[in-house]
Amino acid sequence: MGGLFDRTGPTDFRRTSDGLYNEQTCLHTITPKSDGFVAQADFEEHPVAGHSFPTYTREDVKKHKTLADRVWVTYGGEVFDITDFVELHPGGDRILFAAGGALEPFWALYGVHKSEHVLEILQEYKVGVLDPNDKEEVPDLSDPYSQDPSRHPVLKVNSAKPFNAEPPPEILTERYITPNELFFKRNHLPVPNINPDEYQLTIDGPHGTNQEAPLKLSLNDLKTKFPRHEVIVTLQCAGNRRSEMSAVKPVKGLDWGIAAISNARWAGALLRDVLLDAGYTEDTPKALHVHFEGLDKDLTGTKYGASISFQRAMNKQNEVLLAYEMNGEPIPRDHGFPLRVIVPGVVGARNVKWLGQISVSTEESSSHWQQNDYKGFNPCIDWDTVDFKSSPSIQELPVQSAITEPKAGQTVTPDSDDKVTVKGYAWSGDGREIVRVDVSLDGGKTWNVAELYGEKQKERQSWAWKLWKLEASLPTEDKEVTIICKAVDSSYNVQPDTVAPIWNLRGVLNNAWHRVHVSVHRD
Amino acid sequence: MGGLFDRTGPTDFRRTSDGLYNEQTCLHTITPKSDGFVAQADFEEHPVAGHSFPTYTREDVKKHKTLADRVWVTYGGEVFDITDFVELHPGGDRILFAAGGALEPFWALYGVHKSEHVLEILQEYKVGVLDPNDKEEVPDLSDPYSQDPSRHPVLKVNSAKPFNAEPPPEILTERYITPNELFFKRNHLPVPNINPDEYQLTIDGPHGTNQEAPLKLSLNDLKTKFPRHEVIVTLQCAGNRRSEMSAVKPVKGLDWGIAAISNARWAGALLRDVLLDAGYTEDTPKALHVHFEGLDKDLTGTKYGASISFQRAMNKQNEVLLAYEMNGEPIPRDHGFPLRVIVPGVVGARNVKWLGQISVSTEESSSHWQQNDYKGFNPCIDWDTVDFKSSPSIQELPVQSAITEPKAGQTVTPDSDDKVTVKGYAWSGDGREIVRVDVSLDGGKTWNVAELYGEKQKERQSWAWKLWKLEASLPTEDKEVTIICKAVDSSYNVQPDTVAPIWNLRGVLNNAWHRVHVSVHRD
Repeated sequence: MGGLFDRTGPTDFRRTSDGLYNEQTCLHTITPKSDGFVAQADFEEHPVAGHSFPTYTREDVKKHKTLADRVWVTYGGEVFDITDFVELHPGGDRILFAAGGALEPFWALYGVHKSEHVLEILQEYKVGVLDPNDKEEVPDLSDPYSQDPSRHPVLKVNSAKPFNAEPPPEILTERYITPNELFFKRNHLPVPNINPDEYQLTIDGPHGTNQEAPLKLSLNDLKTKFPRHEVIVTLQCAGNRRSEMSAVKPVKGLDWGIAAISNARWAGALLRDVLLDAGYTEDTPKALHVHFEGLDKDLTGTKYGASISFQRAMNKQNEVLLAYEMNGEPIPRDHGFPLRVIVPGVVGARNVKWLGQISVSTEESSSHWQQNDYKGFNPCIDWDTVDFKSSPSIQELPVQSAITEPKAGQTVTPDSDDKVTVKGYAWSGDGREIVRVDVSLDGGKTWNVAELYGEKQKERQSWAWKLWKLEASLPTEDKEVTIICKAVDSSYNVQPDTVAPIWNLRGVLNNAWHRVHVSVHRD
Repeated sequence: MGGLFDRTGPTDFRRTSDGLYNEQTCLHTITPKSDGFVAQADFEEHPVAGHSFPTYTREDVKKHKTLADRVWVTYGGEVFDITDFVELHPGGDRILFAAGGALEPFWALYGVHKSEHVLEILQEYKVGVLDPNDKEEVPDLSDPYSQDPSRHPVLKVNSAKPFNAEPPPEILTERYITPNELFFKRNHLPVPNINPDEYQLTIDGPHGTNQEAPLKLSLNDLKTKFPRHEVIVTLQCAGNRRSEMSAVKPVKGLDWGIAAISNARWAGALLRDVLLDAGYTEDTPKALHVHFEGLDKDLTGTKYGASISFQRAMNKQNEVLLAYEMNGEPIPRDHGFPLRVIVPGVVGARNVKWLGQISVSTEESSSHWQQNDYKGFNPCIDWDTVDFKSSPSIQELPVQSAITEPKAGQTVTPDSDDKVTVKGYAWSGDGREIVRVDVSLDGGKTWNVAELYGEKQKERQSWAWKLWKLEASLPTEDKEVTIICKAVDSSYNVQPDTVAPIWNLRGVLNNAWHRVHVSVHRD
């Protein structure tokens, strides 16, 4: 990534559990430097000379999210009122995504901001500084969610407790790697508050061997005893695009749009290496499933849990990780600090966060989320007739794609060549690469092939999405059009045409063609 | 399999290149034995006592395929006129599949025939014996196809030269393993006539090593130097179900129905083991693709060729075979005698038959069939705009299913419970198991879950199809209904709803829902 947040510079940057930009626990001023880039230092030590600014809390800033309330943003430890700049912003009203919150994640998306010039402009709008004593509120201990981290206000919150939120879809396709703050967040329980220095991962040893005693590994053990493995993996919630399923017939589940999917670079120890260290081999008798237990728990003490097959865990090609880094930073609290499982190509629900314990069994995890949730059913099965035992737990996900721009209901204006730009993402499970995305601008009568973007990964290890873009003419003088996308993966799997025949009572696995209805404005 | 053709008995059974039942080169009588089963011996040595029967050739028998021409069949070396038995046959008119040809493949499907009682009944209808001198016709050397083997008349021939044929679909779902004679046949060129004693497989050694010289292996070497590996694999032609695609818009290609798919038990040496013996390792530099060249060639001497990735070849889990056996017999000539490649989970076209040479390269095979055929395209690409370089060669195939019973246009009669039986197959590529088949009897409004049949194979190694069956009520008093099936694989991939959006100029990869329109007859 380099640039503004490059860690290779001389300044010390305190790593925290809160991710790349240290919104909560560290405050920094940004000082322009002669090389056009900036360094970070403690806010208190560098008051801006010749000015005295009022002090605000993040809660104060959050109140300024609209032009009517005036638009405030933060950067480093400073507060800016950019209301009057919104019209002047070369990138248009996209700047409003940051309204009421921090600029940093967006500047990570839009590299053009990383210049002295932009920082100078920003300084003109400075109205205050962030209160250096603006810590998290005193937790309300009667609320199990009181110690959850704060989140960027741009996220669309589908559930506050537990926290489930997705970014605006158009942000997803701005960059191949999703910044941590904007990565979709799907928690099942309160976020545990784990002291990394005291953290220990427990791995039960193989029964009936001389390694039967559990192996205990500290975070430092995980970082130093095993080779560091890095891999770019897209995670997707099984409920991504559920809202389209609910539109067919109500389902039980959070109302996710199309952005319960994001892409990050993860680093950690290979689960295979840790299992080998704990005494397992590929031939360990009765080793069929690997169970993961989180440290997040409900009021009765029940922890989140899930399992994958032992074969998936042990096969090098699958690159299953015990990850301690997300995009070059310690994994943020919302994403599993200090350690989570990354199972490439597999539904988010098996990528257990805040990992506490690993065990190996002849059976799948008995957890609710393995046995009685995250399974697919025929559209005619309802809550009266469902037998959760009759379906396999969701592991690998099917081929998927969606349109992030334009948005449903938007009015699109063709450019001088009468062309419009359509953008989106496409991904498939189990390492299958996306080989083609078809886009229709006339409701499915004709199809164009979109351009694909993204890093080339290995055969059967294409764990990350492809972003795609199409510039094409609207075919007629129609005032309204339905734009559709559908992807093809390396196994030539395709998406189904419609949602109703794959509808299921939990609203999971919606991978039907994505349709966006827009109005056309021609001058 | 056991029973009638059990090879463990005391009788000698001459193995030939023509498969399980030796239609062409060996003639046998069937003599009932006291244990209810039968033994085989040379026809000439055992004339049936007290009778003198006329002698017929296979061509004579083929003329008797209808009730009007009278229905003749052969069994062992004997000829039977079963016209008067057709009405008495407990299995109904299915007996007509054998009309004009041999009973053996059907008795392999329907095990109930393997009894002394049935053989006694058959003897009542004997009308002659097969001419022991009925060899293949003298080849017309001006016809490159003159030495092709003869085939069972039940096959629906889509092209005679090269020979391409599929069995009646309802036969496919009679047994999990498809008998060799009934297995779909897809040849690109004339069938080579290979002397197994002189046969040699050439494997080019790795460049720049001390094993650079080609390795030469005889058939006996392949059988004795490497462990014998057995695996049940379904093969499917990329053009299976092309006729439904042609119905949308004409395509170039043979008019396959739904039966260009079959399932067999293959045995041979693992390609991995042979490559290791030739000096390759997983880390051989520049080893990216494995090329296979057949011994079948066109008039200019160009041989059939294809390639798969080196990684696929070397990964044990993929079980890529150099197969010399098909369902317990030497591979029949039509299926690649004496050696073919079996690439589980991958399109038939890469399963090169009559294998002559293996080489390893940085590039894919340059053959027509790898570069300019067997690729998928967007439905709006036509022969004027197609760029074959823009699409990847088809390797793994997508999830598939089809209805074998009832047939389109058939009149179905519900049973006394007002139920009908629907049967079919379902399969997916790359070792993905079929986890569910949905069947609709009302054109897609409601869906039932079918019962699945077939051997359980390992995770990610589920190379064989599942057969399925549903007994369900027709929902209304409708006189006509559309029956639909759609399958789900272990990656929760599903089939697309309709053919048109996956139409492509070569008519490959049709895996849309299969629809069968039938009339309903109620008493």
